[in-house]
Amino acid sequence: MSLIFRRFMASASASSSTTITLKPTPSKSHHHSPIPSSSFPKGYLLTGLHCGIKKKPGIPDLGLILSTSPHQTTAAACFTKNTFKAAPVLVSEHVLVKNGGKARAVVVNSGCANAVTGKQGLKDAWAMVEETDRLLPSSSESTSSDQEHHTLVLSTGVIGQNLPISKIIAGIRSQTPSSTTSTLSNDFAGWERAARAFMTTDTFPKLRARTFKIGGVEYRMAGMDKGAGMIHPSMGPPRASAGGQLHATLLGCILTDAPVSSKSLQSALTYAVERSFNSISVDGEMSTNDTILVLANGAAQDSSNAALKVEEIDEETNKEGYEVFKKELTEFAIDLAKLVVRDGEGATKFVTVTVKNAPTYPDAHRVASRISTSALVKTALYGEDANWGRILSATGSVPLSSSPSGIPLEIDPKKVSVTFIPSDGSSPLPVLINGEPEKVDEARAKEILVKEDLEVEVDLGMEQVGEEEGLARYWTCDFSYEYVRINGDYRS
Amino acid sequence: MSLIFRRFMASASASSSTTITLKPTPSKSHHHSPIPSSSFPKGYLLTGLHCGIKKKPGIPDLGLILSTSPHQTTAAACFTKNTFKAAPVLVSEHVLVKNGGKARAVVVNSGCANAVTGKQGLKDAWAMVEETDRLLPSSSESTSSDQEHHTLVLSTGVIGQNLPISKIIAGIRSQTPSSTTSTLSNDFAGWERAARAFMTTDTFPKLRARTFKIGGVEYRMAGMDKGAGMIHPSMGPPRASAGGQLHATLLGCILTDAPVSSKSLQSALTYAVERSFNSISVDGEMSTNDTILVLANGAAQDSSNAALKVEEIDEETNKEGYEVFKKELTEFAIDLAKLVVRDGEGATKFVTVTVKNAPTYPDAHRVASRISTSALVKTALYGEDANWGRILSATGSVPLSSSPSGIPLEIDPKKVSVTFIPSDGSSPLPVLINGEPEKVDEARAKEILVKEDLEVEVDLGMEQVGEEEGLARYWTCDFSYEYVRINGDYRS
Repeated sequence: MSLIFRRFMASASASSSTTITLKPTPSKSHHHSPIPSSSFPKGYLLTGLHCGIKKKPGIPDLGLILSTSPHQTTAAACFTKNTFKAAPVLVSEHVLVKNGGKARAVVVNSGCANAVTGKQGLKDAWAMVEETDRLLPSSSESTSSDQEHHTLVLSTGVIGQNLPISKIIAGIRSQTPSSTTSTLSNDFAGWERAARAFMTTDTFPKLRARTFKIGGVEYRMAGMDKGAGMIHPSMGPPRASAGGQLHATLLGCILTDAPVSSKSLQSALTYAVERSFNSISVDGEMSTNDTILVLANGAAQDSSNAALKVEEIDEETNKEGYEVFKKELTEFAIDLAKLVVRDGEGATKFVTVTVKNAPTYPDAHRVASRISTSALVKTALYGEDANWGRILSATGSVPLSSSPSGIPLEIDPKKVSVTFIPSDGSSPLPVLINGEPEKVDEARAKEILVKEDLEVEVDLGMEQVGEEEGLARYWTCDFSYEYVRINGDYRS
Repeated sequence: MSLIFRRFMASASASSSTTITLKPTPSKSHHHSPIPSSSFPKGYLLTGLHCGIKKKPGIPDLGLILSTSPHQTTAAACFTKNTFKAAPVLVSEHVLVKNGGKARAVVVNSGCANAVTGKQGLKDAWAMVEETDRLLPSSSESTSSDQEHHTLVLSTGVIGQNLPISKIIAGIRSQTPSSTTSTLSNDFAGWERAARAFMTTDTFPKLRARTFKIGGVEYRMAGMDKGAGMIHPSMGPPRASAGGQLHATLLGCILTDAPVSSKSLQSALTYAVERSFNSISVDGEMSTNDTILVLANGAAQDSSNAALKVEEIDEETNKEGYEVFKKELTEFAIDLAKLVVRDGEGATKFVTVTVKNAPTYPDAHRVASRISTSALVKTALYGEDANWGRILSATGSVPLSSSPSGIPLEIDPKKVSVTFIPSDGSSPLPVLINGEPEKVDEARAKEILVKEDLEVEVDLGMEQVGEEEGLARYWTCDFSYEYVRINGDYRS
């Protein structure tokens, strides 16, 4: 018997007062473990502390990241495209645009999103920037005008409430590098404290590091992010913008000791974010504070072999180095983005959705996004059901782009194949080949679907249009009772 | 204290093996009640019967609708825009296009969607059409070529299985009007039997009737639809199309005894479907067999006062009559569409989302659609939580259209207002006025939100661009544990 879509044969009416036992959400704590201090980029100081935004004592709610590099520290960011932007987003965008892609510090708080807080919200975000600026050593490169700021600000948590700004200011002051109360450091403990200061409903701190080489010189990259729900970002580079406020979910910060020009740092980040943070979905909800920052301080050159020439990474003057950096940044951003899906609210599965042989990359990305946000696909994944019918239906609901001559491109159902790829390296299970349903071994399907990790591959069988391959990957999780519990019951 | 968005303050980790008691889904049976036979349009015969597609004896799984009018019966349809179309969709589209907007019968089956069934599926759909054609009295207007068919076909149910076609053919034959086994009639019993033959996971048959007058002549309109999950249709008029198959969820059929030209019947239906069936969402899932049909047989003229001139309803020759008909058809389609949302899988709420003062109707429709499909908005509705933050966030994630000069239009957050409107006629509750959060009386909010019915109004405060008002209504339901149970557990 072919695989059957029993949806419409399900018992018709809901019984009253059914009691269900929630499938336990698997522990995620093994996704966090110590990292050797030598893996962290040079020239940064970090910490996290409890300043009193969150009620529970000792839980970090304020994080600080300072670049101490004597070289120029460039910065780039991707901010949410949501119309309603929180005060910290507007302020960070302003600082970054005004400084032409430079910044030397990041201040982050959790527990309060500083959103829908009007003028006071903007004033508070600026106060956080100014106070953090004071922690920075005065820089020789700085023109030191009164107008210049060096700090980017991130907030996440409750909306509609003002920040307890005096507690935050006191917290920032306690970290003055020369003071005895400062816990700023560049070891695992400092990085972990900072990562914890990002957390809200996250069940583990999300911290990763990697090293890479360009032209024989070794560089380091490390970063943290946070997010568990309201995850379906769509972020772009900063722009001049006006008004607006709301609240945040996805925040990330990547730091490297490579020297990268401002412009190239932004273009590499924009590319990386599209293929990482803009390719994940927990619940299809684009938030209003989603922000990913990257700082590049060039500090690697101070510790590297003086015989090796450290060349600025730039798309025009050092194309080869730029391509390596872009690839490393993209892979690292994907690692961080995946951690958010791992920690998705109520998630019991981690699913990679690959769409290939689409006419263009944006088409592949749109189809992968639709499959990854389909409530029917996600409940089927929760139910460990190889329901390719729902995958096909979601695929077919996406309009594709037009051909160069303006004719809308269409999927030919007779060329579409769907395959479930197990995470353990065993044989893939084709469920639809060229539009024809396969005779599916249900026991084998179950074997693949009971695992936490799974890949769904949809091959559209279309010709490539243009230069870029029509292949996109998306990462998503399942839709569980627990998601409804977290988001439906939290105020009761 | 302002309304708080506690999302990020929810307890961080899911407890293992939590047991929850599902809130009972309210009974929907009161949405079905007898209709006087005089309300049904003249010149139709209907029935529903059990032919053996469904296993349970006695449950209708085959429905027939015949026009017996001596006048021309025009027909129009909107079919799913999904790439993967089931065999009955392809066949009905073919019949309708070939006949230039005429058809005199509809055959529908439930229990099997005849989707992903390849060539056999198409053969079976054609067999249903041909067998039903034989039930029709030979028509004087018919040119009776061997190629001409008069029947449209609808299927819904399991996919990947072939129809038990011999049982269906026997069932159709048993309804030959002259035979003793025929149960075809034009009374409530006949209409109700037909409506029941559409049902799958529906908990009640969805049947409505109304009368209306044009130029002093009374006309009738009645119809049925079905659907409970995989509901987020996007349907358009028929077109020549190739290949493809899958499965169905939303089916509807509207019959009237008004005389309407084929072309105007299609344009009125296209308008009506956009504002009714294309404005509902249960789970954001566009299906692959979604079909709405309308037949107009002109039979009213035989029973009306001979002194009154019965004029064909046509957009060009009888503009006034056409406008009345379009309005009646739209209102009736909205009534039928709302029944589907009422019966949404696991739904405990019926929510009207109104977006006003958008620059254009499509903008208003897109924003309303996004709010209506937001998992966070829908779980908040289930939790009876006046969570305007999630509504605002969904609103802000929709890109609007461009101004006539090509500049993308943008929402000004300082002009946006959100109001909860209770269903009992009591005072509306503003929660956000011109971007400023209101001090919300939580007890009053709870009073409104515990009710089954609720309206959410989002005022974008923008200038109208173009001729059409930027106002759209969408109907949606909440997202409950029961939805996850129905769609995650149905195969286990």
